[in-house]
Amino acid sequence: MANEERHGSSNTSFPMRSGEDKYSYSRNSHYQKNGADMVKTMMLKEITEKLDLEQCFSSPRLFNVADLGCSIGPNTFFVVQNIIDAVELKHQALGLSKSDLEFQVFFSDQSSNDFNTLFRSLPPERRYFASGVPGTFYGRLFPKASLHFAHCSYAVHWLSKIPKQVLDRNSPAWNRGRIHYRTKEVKEAFAAQFAEDMKSFLEARAEEVVSGGLMALILCGQPSGTDPSKCAIRMLFELLGFSFMDMAKMGLTDEAKVDSFNLPLYFPAKEELEGIIQNNGCFDIEKAEVFHQSRLEAKNHDVQKFILMIRSAFEMLICENFGTQILEQLFQRFTERVTESGILWYSSYSPFIDLFVFLKRKVKK
Amino acid sequence: MANEERHGSSNTSFPMRSGEDKYSYSRNSHYQKNGADMVKTMMLKEITEKLDLEQCFSSPRLFNVADLGCSIGPNTFFVVQNIIDAVELKHQALGLSKSDLEFQVFFSDQSSNDFNTLFRSLPPERRYFASGVPGTFYGRLFPKASLHFAHCSYAVHWLSKIPKQVLDRNSPAWNRGRIHYRTKEVKEAFAAQFAEDMKSFLEARAEEVVSGGLMALILCGQPSGTDPSKCAIRMLFELLGFSFMDMAKMGLTDEAKVDSFNLPLYFPAKEELEGIIQNNGCFDIEKAEVFHQSRLEAKNHDVQKFILMIRSAFEMLICENFGTQILEQLFQRFTERVTESGILWYSSYSPFIDLFVFLKRKVKK
Repeated sequence: MANEERHGSSNTSFPMRSGEDKYSYSRNSHYQKNGADMVKTMMLKEITEKLDLEQCFSSPRLFNVADLGCSIGPNTFFVVQNIIDAVELKHQALGLSKSDLEFQVFFSDQSSNDFNTLFRSLPPERRYFASGVPGTFYGRLFPKASLHFAHCSYAVHWLSKIPKQVLDRNSPAWNRGRIHYRTKEVKEAFAAQFAEDMKSFLEARAEEVVSGGLMALILCGQPSGTDPSKCAIRMLFELLGFSFMDMAKMGLTDEAKVDSFNLPLYFPAKEELEGIIQNNGCFDIEKAEVFHQSRLEAKNHDVQKFILMIRSAFEMLICENFGTQILEQLFQRFTERVTESGILWYSSYSPFIDLFVFLKRKVKK
Repeated sequence: MANEERHGSSNTSFPMRSGEDKYSYSRNSHYQKNGADMVKTMMLKEITEKLDLEQCFSSPRLFNVADLGCSIGPNTFFVVQNIIDAVELKHQALGLSKSDLEFQVFFSDQSSNDFNTLFRSLPPERRYFASGVPGTFYGRLFPKASLHFAHCSYAVHWLSKIPKQVLDRNSPAWNRGRIHYRTKEVKEAFAAQFAEDMKSFLEARAEEVVSGGLMALILCGQPSGTDPSKCAIRMLFELLGFSFMDMAKMGLTDEAKVDSFNLPLYFPAKEELEGIIQNNGCFDIEKAEVFHQSRLEAKNHDVQKFILMIRSAFEMLICENFGTQILEQLFQRFTERVTESGILWYSSYSPFIDLFVFLKRKVKK
C-alpha cells in the first residue's frame, strides 16, 4: 500500500534545485509561474461551472486540495490560493456561509524534494491547513476518495524513469550521443513510457479523488505534427545534448557518459494526452486547451533568465551523473548555442506550448 | 486560522538536533524510545478497551492518526506502528475486513523541524499514507473533527515560550544565574506558562479530534511533593546551569547571557496535569499513570549516552544563544558534574518519572 517509492533509487528521483539561492528552483520558476497566471482565468471558470459542491462534499465541510509535484514554492502557494479563492466564490454564490468551510492542502512531491524550504516559506496569512506528502505521484499517495481537487502543474511531463531500450547498445532505440529523443525509435520508447506513467497516475488519482471531484493538469506539450527541427522545445534539448558533447570533446566528460544520460521528459501532443485519459475512463475531460507564453525578445538578459530556469530544474540530475565541475562550462556553452540558434525568438520555430486539461471524476460505481 | 506559528521567532522554536550524525536526535533518543516501549502494553490495552470504532468512524473507513512533536524519527515510526497494530487488532476482533481499513498518518512538528530527514527515513514497508504537518501544536493544525487518534510523546513538557517575568530584572521571578526553575517564584511562573500552553493544546485538539476519538500523552513529570534537591530531573538542569556558570567564570560566555537564558521546559506532577485536563472538560481521562525507567548503572559509558540524549535535544537552542564554540567544554563539564553528583544512579534521588495519560474525546454537543 501507500507510497511505493518508484523514484527512490538514484536514477529515478529528479528533484528541482533546493534551497533559495540564485540557482534555486524557487528563484527560477518564472516560466511555470507565467503558465499558472495564464490558466488562472480558465481554472476559475472551470471551477465555477463544473464544481458540484453537494456532490463531492461530505459533512463536515472540509475541502481537500492536493498539489502534486509542488516542488518548493512559491508557485505552489499561488496556485493553491487561486483554487481556494475559486471554491470560496462558488461556495458563496450558493449562499453558504464561508465560516463553515475549511481547507486542507496537501503539498506533495518526491521524498527527495526540499520540504524544509517549502514548509519554512508557507504563507503566514494562509487560510488553510497545510500538510506535506512525500512520494511519487505515479503511485498512491492518499486514502480512497479523500481529495476534492488534485492539481498537477509542470510535473507529469517528467517520466518515472528512462525507458530501458534507450540505454541498450543493442537496441535500435539506443540513444547514442543524445540526451533526449530525436529518432523515431527513441521517441516511441519515450512515448510508451509516458503512456504507462500517465496510466499509473490516472489509476492512483481515480482512487483518491471523490466522485465529482476535479483535477487540473498543466504540462509542457508539443505541437501536433511539427517537424522536430522546427519545434523549439525539441531543439532546446537537442542543443543541450550538443553542449554535453562539446564537454566530452573538451575532455570534461566521457562520450559514454553522454550516451547513457537521458532527460526523463516527454512532451505529448494534446490529442495523445486526451487519448490516454479517455482510455483510462475514470475522468471526463471538461476542457483541454493548448496555450503558449510569448516568445522572448532577442536580448541576452532574457536568455540568461530562461537558462537559469532550465538549470534549476536539471542541475541536481546533471550533478548526480556528471559531478558539479561540469556545470558552469556546460551552461555557458548551452547559453551560447541557444542564443546562436534563435529558437527562443524566431517565428520559424514553433513556440513552446503548454497543455491545460481540466478533468472531473466520474461517479464511482 | 491554521497554524499561528507561535514558535516562529528565534526564541520560541526549539527543534531537536537535525540530520543523522552522532549528535543527532535520531541517534540519541533512546530515553524516549524506552518510554514508548514501556507504555506500549498500556496503550494496546487502552485502545482495545476504549476505542469505539462505530462511534468515531465515518464512511469510508479511514483512520487518521497524528503524532504531534514527532521530531525526525525513528521513535515516531515505532509509536505510529504500535497504534496502527492495535487499531487493526480491534478492527479484526469486531470481525471487520482488514482490507476495508486505510490509515493516514500526520507527522507533525514545528516548521523548523528537519522534515527532509523524517521523510527520507519513512519505513518503506509502511501500511499507511504518510504526511507531514508543520506548525506548533499549541495552535490548530488540522481541520475540525479530522483525527481519530492524536499522540504526543515527550513534547508537551516543552513550553511555547519562556515566561516574561523570569527575564525581568525587576521581578521577584527573575531567574538570575540559573537556566531552569528552582525558586518558588520562578517555578510558579513556569507552572502558569505550562497551564496556559496545555489549555491551548487541549482547546485545539478538542476541535480536531472526533467524538469518541483518542489521545495519548507521554511527558516527563516530577514526583509530587519531592524536595527539588532530591529530585533527579530538577538537579539535572541545576547542574547544567552550574556548567553554564562554569563557562562564564572561564570567560567563555557572559554571566548576563546565562541570566537571560532559560530552558523552556516544565515537568508537572500527575495531579497537576489531571487538573488542567479536567478544567478543559473536553476529554475523559481513561488512564493516568506514572512510570519510570530504570536507573543507570554507575558506568561512564551510560552517562555519556545519557548526556548525548540531552545534548541532541538542546544543542540547537544553546547554539542559537551561545554560539557553537561553547558546546564541547560545556557538555564535558556537565558530564563531570552529573557523574560526580550521582543523580543518575543513587537511590537517594527520586528517579526521572514519566507520565502516561490516555484520553477520550467526549461526545460533542
